Amino acid sequence: MSEPDKKGDIPDESAGKGIPNGGNAAKSKEDFELASIYVSDAQYNRNIYFDTSPQAVRLYLRYNHWIPKVLLLFFIVVDLSLAIFEEPAVFLLPVALTLVDMIVYGALDAAGCYAVRWSRVLRPLLLVNVTEGRQLRRAFRSIRNALPQIFYVFMLFMFSLLIFSLMALKLLGKRGLKTIDGAPYFTNYLEIVLDLYVLVTTANSPDVMMPAYNSSFVFAVFFILYILINTYIFMSVFLAVVYNNYKKYLKEEVRQLVRTKRHKMARAFAVLQEPKAAGGEPVVSQANWNQIVRLVQPGISNAHRELLWSVGDDDNQGCVGKLAFVQLADLLNIEVITLKSRPHPLQSAFPAFYLSAPSRLVCRLVQHRAFVVAYDLIILVNAVFIGLDEENPLIANSEWAFLALYLLEILLKLYVFEPRSFFSRHNFWNWFDTIIVVSALIATIVNSALTSSGNYTSRQILDIVFILRVLRLIRVVDNIQRFRAIINTLIRIGPAILTFGQLIIVVYYIFAMVGMELFKGKVKFYEEDSSDPAKAYCGNELLRGTAFAQLNYCKNNFNNVVSSYILLVELTVVNQWHVLSSGFAAVTHASARLFFILFHIMVVIVIINIFVAFVLEAFFVEYSVDKSDLQTSLERKIEELQLAVEQEKLEDNLVNAMETADNEQGTGQSANKPPLMFKIASKRYRTVDALLQRMFEADLDPEDFAENDDGDDGGNFANPAFSSA
Amino acid sequence: MSEPDKKGDIPDESAGKGIPNGGNAAKSKEDFELASIYVSDAQYNRNIYFDTSPQAVRLYLRYNHWIPKVLLLFFIVVDLSLAIFEEPAVFLLPVALTLVDMIVYGALDAAGCYAVRWSRVLRPLLLVNVTEGRQLRRAFRSIRNALPQIFYVFMLFMFSLLIFSLMALKLLGKRGLKTIDGAPYFTNYLEIVLDLYVLVTTANSPDVMMPAYNSSFVFAVFFILYILINTYIFMSVFLAVVYNNYKKYLKEEVRQLVRTKRHKMARAFAVLQEPKAAGGEPVVSQANWNQIVRLVQPGISNAHRELLWSVGDDDNQGCVGKLAFVQLADLLNIEVITLKSRPHPLQSAFPAFYLSAPSRLVCRLVQHRAFVVAYDLIILVNAVFIGLDEENPLIANSEWAFLALYLLEILLKLYVFEPRSFFSRHNFWNWFDTIIVVSALIATIVNSALTSSGNYTSRQILDIVFILRVLRLIRVVDNIQRFRAIINTLIRIGPAILTFGQLIIVVYYIFAMVGMELFKGKVKFYEEDSSDPAKAYCGNELLRGTAFAQLNYCKNNFNNVVSSYILLVELTVVNQWHVLSSGFAAVTHASARLFFILFHIMVVIVIINIFVAFVLEAFFVEYSVDKSDLQTSLERKIEELQLAVEQEKLEDNLVNAMETADNEQGTGQSANKPPLMFKIASKRYRTVDALLQRMFEADLDPEDFAENDDGDDGGNFANPAFSSA
Repeated sequence: MSEPDKKGDIPDESAGKGIPNGGNAAKSKEDFELASIYVSDAQYNRNIYFDTSPQAVRLYLRYNHWIPKVLLLFFIVVDLSLAIFEEPAVFLLPVALTLVDMIVYGALDAAGCYAVRWSRVLRPLLLVNVTEGRQLRRAFRSIRNALPQIFYVFMLFMFSLLIFSLMALKLLGKRGLKTIDGAPYFTNYLEIVLDLYVLVTTANSPDVMMPAYNSSFVFAVFFILYILINTYIFMSVFLAVVYNNYKKYLKEEVRQLVRTKRHKMARAFAVLQEPKAAGGEPVVSQANWNQIVRLVQPGISNAHRELLWSVGDDDNQGCVGKLAFVQLADLLNIEVITLKSRPHPLQSAFPAFYLSAPSRLVCRLVQHRAFVVAYDLIILVNAVFIGLDEENPLIANSEWAFLALYLLEILLKLYVFEPRSFFSRHNFWNWFDTIIVVSALIATIVNSALTSSGNYTSRQILDIVFILRVLRLIRVVDNIQRFRAIINTLIRIGPAILTFGQLIIVVYYIFAMVGMELFKGKVKFYEEDSSDPAKAYCGNELLRGTAFAQLNYCKNNFNNVVSSYILLVELTVVNQWHVLSSGFAAVTHASARLFFILFHIMVVIVIINIFVAFVLEAFFVEYSVDKSDLQTSLERKIEELQLAVEQEKLEDNLVNAMETADNEQGTGQSANKPPLMFKIASKRYRTVDALLQRMFEADLDPEDFAENDDGDDGGNFANPAFSSA
Repeated sequence: MSEPDKKGDIPDESAGKGIPNGGNAAKSKEDFELASIYVSDAQYNRNIYFDTSPQAVRLYLRYNHWIPKVLLLFFIVVDLSLAIFEEPAVFLLPVALTLVDMIVYGALDAAGCYAVRWSRVLRPLLLVNVTEGRQLRRAFRSIRNALPQIFYVFMLFMFSLLIFSLMALKLLGKRGLKTIDGAPYFTNYLEIVLDLYVLVTTANSPDVMMPAYNSSFVFAVFFILYILINTYIFMSVFLAVVYNNYKKYLKEEVRQLVRTKRHKMARAFAVLQEPKAAGGEPVVSQANWNQIVRLVQPGISNAHRELLWSVGDDDNQGCVGKLAFVQLADLLNIEVITLKSRPHPLQSAFPAFYLSAPSRLVCRLVQHRAFVVAYDLIILVNAVFIGLDEENPLIANSEWAFLALYLLEILLKLYVFEPRSFFSRHNFWNWFDTIIVVSALIATIVNSALTSSGNYTSRQILDIVFILRVLRLIRVVDNIQRFRAIINTLIRIGPAILTFGQLIIVVYYIFAMVGMELFKGKVKFYEEDSSDPAKAYCGNELLRGTAFAQLNYCKNNFNNVVSSYILLVELTVVNQWHVLSSGFAAVTHASARLFFILFHIMVVIVIINIFVAFVLEAFFVEYSVDKSDLQTSLERKIEELQLAVEQEKLEDNLVNAMETADNEQGTGQSANKPPLMFKIASKRYRTVDALLQRMFEADLDPEDFAENDDGDDGGNFANPAFSSA
């Protein structure tokens, strides 16, 4: 704790230097390293305590390097994929590798206990507990916080279920009705409760109602009332409660996050600050600012850096104050696309040829709207040809024509547009097109080479060819404005959805491990061509005649981690889950249904609802919230500097904008344009945190530095300018 | 249009009278009638143009009487229930009654045309087009407005469906896979599209995937990807789009509604106003105000009216200005519960007995927490007894003991609490208890009388007894604070849900009519005991061997309006809808599936999502919005006048509060309490409009009178005070 005080004292030594421009000299390398850690921690919302001694800082920098991160990711993958090699295993590994696990397990087993390797269930916690699992931890915290509220609604729902079941027992149990299998209908209370719980998921509708409905239509009213209350109203209430709680707690967490971020930036400022000439508030000089930005984001272009500086130093004073400095973390998170208007390489190499009349005609044709429409039509015809039978030689050969047309399109575009712009990082569809077409070309060539050489067709390669052919058709979507807008929104909320992907993987992992312990080997799958009579009942006599075996669900088992995951997806989709759970209950014990009910509550009622809540919220943010203040000020600055890409050419479509910009350069119509232009990828969030922050931005005070929040760290954040004044 | 000007001139005659207290004389009966129409139109958000001549006003008053409304409702019911008596009919009517319909239909039929009575489809429009169908019209308008947005997402969804289907055809069509029925798997493009559309509704999961999954687990990835994109993401996007559009348009409509309401109140003010003594703004005197309130709400208590007046006339000036007057419509919509602390009738009749020590002990016992707990335990034991077999004579007789215990509880409560308070309109649970227990008593007596007399048990009466017994158990919920809060929220959003009930009924009606035209008589239902071999295939050879017949779905048909409605509910629940639609396609034509797909899109994708959106929004309002300003000012006034029921006794539970209040009076502990107390039923909305208004209240400017909105009506709203000044 003495280290930061030393840092804090440094500005005193350099006090009275006047407006700092060579202030660089006063700051040691250690200072910059420390400040850059603060800034990048703030930028990526990392929140790890570290010692501020130079050695510790250097260690921390190494910790943040990409190599340990990749290693960590590798170990997580190894940790989780252990499940693939263990018994029940997809691939059996030599015993030596699973030795340690075996020793513990074996010792217990030998001691006569029924040993269950429960430790496997805990494996995904590694994923949750590493620093990078921040979003995941937050999602888990939100769920935990929402649980009490969900619990009360769930209890009320259970009460309603029990009351309806009791009524069903009294009304229907004594009528001697039979189910379609000839079994007595609604005579056992527990079975009724189970049937009606399944009805909430709609999985056994209308079958569960038919015997009663066949007896009298009045009973249908009972079931309709039940569905209305328990399926529609209660399930909506679950969504509402989950949504509301999730939003509430997330808001609180994000507020905390933003405070921590500002706090970190204020610390970085304290390290870098110098007193101003007039003895006013301390500032950070441009030279120091430049160095810290270069340290934090080594890949940043000079132009981009200067743009950011001009936003911070709005009055051209050569230094920024604390408020402007604190913005830096958020400014770095705004994705600014730098458009360089370069002449086409062909133009530089062969100007006479490239600027000749026929060449310019080609350029104009390719940029014409009709070019896009023509290719849309080609894609349409291609779709019809794909749908037709490829046994027909004419259709089989037409594929070569289509491939040629698509290749021609890409080559024409490369001729007209500057290649580096065409393949810039943000041109998703250009990349998509090129990769798909080139892969299709390679796969088709390989396939026909194989076919002609040995008259042998590789099923795998043919499959790839088919998939690539169909994927090519997706391009049409990008040419329709309305579709593009929807897809852009979906792509934007993509990273956030990935967090839920992690969440689902962790929860699935736990259920898969438990499921494998409970049900492994109970249900066997026989290949299609097997003639084993046990195939008819999945290798387990207990399944003979059950719906599970009749519907040929044998492959839906817990025999290895892959089939477990697929089974869990099926359970998440809910339909037929009662058949699946009955199957597993039949081969073990009736209480096995609890496992499936628990899974339904956890995944379908809680997690899927949170997923829906998140998609809803993200969509509403997309629809309603305008750009953040910071983005606006950055855009204003771009406008001011006359470096903006014309608004009317944007229309949220970068490709168009760039093509137009390049085109103007290329055809020499706009030589007076600046060689460099900026555009904010206005609604694309680089991180999930940025999306979350924007979701709840309206409630956050921009002046709130939260310095008083953790006052015990105050020593780290002393403001020497005040003490020296 | 000359009439209102005449009204407008009246205040001039009484000008200079000083503060009006006897201003009553200056206003004619016609004035009050006109003003009361404006106020009550504003209160109930009616928006009908009417002439302001005294005759027209009187006609309009008669139109607003309850008799024409009941008649209208009767005709709507007759109109819609025609479907019950028509061919295909539940009950056949004599031909004479359906003569007119027959003539048109018959004429067409005789002329050789295939006559379809499409007019029947239009019948529900009567329900939509009457004045009282306001909420329904609004819901339809919201849907219509949201349709374009939904359309684009739907197109994109269809595109995704078609692409996935094409890929499935290419990947799976050539592998020679078989479905579980031995049919070729995924070889026909149209069938694949249909199968994958059904998979979006999850109805055929995981069956549709099993043949591919059995061949290789890699194909499961294809289906999981499909489900992720089309079921989870697209369906969430549908909800988001529907929700967002619905909210947006509803907000605009409600804003218009509030403006119209204020406009009407301003007109009523113009009719009743008198100039103030000092020549300031015009006002309405207390006498006129009282008369108008009495006219608008004849049942209002004097105390309640005076409370409302004191909110409007905050400074005790004897008159209210325009702003305060305009609030009246909203003030009347706030439900104020008047609690009269009356002594118990027994106390008045036999004070010595009622106030004796044993009597007071009984009172204290009944009010004790233990009394509630004891009865909860009794209910619990009762629940177990109901669940047990009632053949056992001990258990059958125990019913009498439980009935006696419940009756005792009610009698004890009536002894302790003042009966009129106990049965006041807001004590839902007291009414519920008493009705259930008394009905159960009657039904049980009738049942045992029947049993003992002729050894004959009526199944119907026994059913009623069972239902009443089980319903009694629901009471437990009210005793648990957390459950009460959730249920109160549900009850509050109940009226709004009823609007959706109407919407569903109208949409169902249209689909039922079309369905009956298309499918009547194609599927026949045979009673359980029928031995007709046609029973196995629902009387239609074409259904032989289909899943529809195998699952015994014969009663799910369009043969009459009741079974059509039940079938449509099953289709709304979605599960097995592919089996149902295949069945009807089998007996008619493959294109019949379009009817079912259209139903799915309209009802499940659009209307159910709007329902979910409404429940979500209503829940968020309940969670987040505090009381409206007006409610707060009313409550402040109640506090000021020291007429409030103590806050700590409220806990959102009126019964408790009233019991305590009565108790204190009854046992004579608090003779210094005022004899009258108020409580705002703070979150209960009398009308759907009030709930909607509160949902979007934050965006409405209270000063906005929208007088300029319909300037052509300006003559009706001239402000004579200004012109005479």
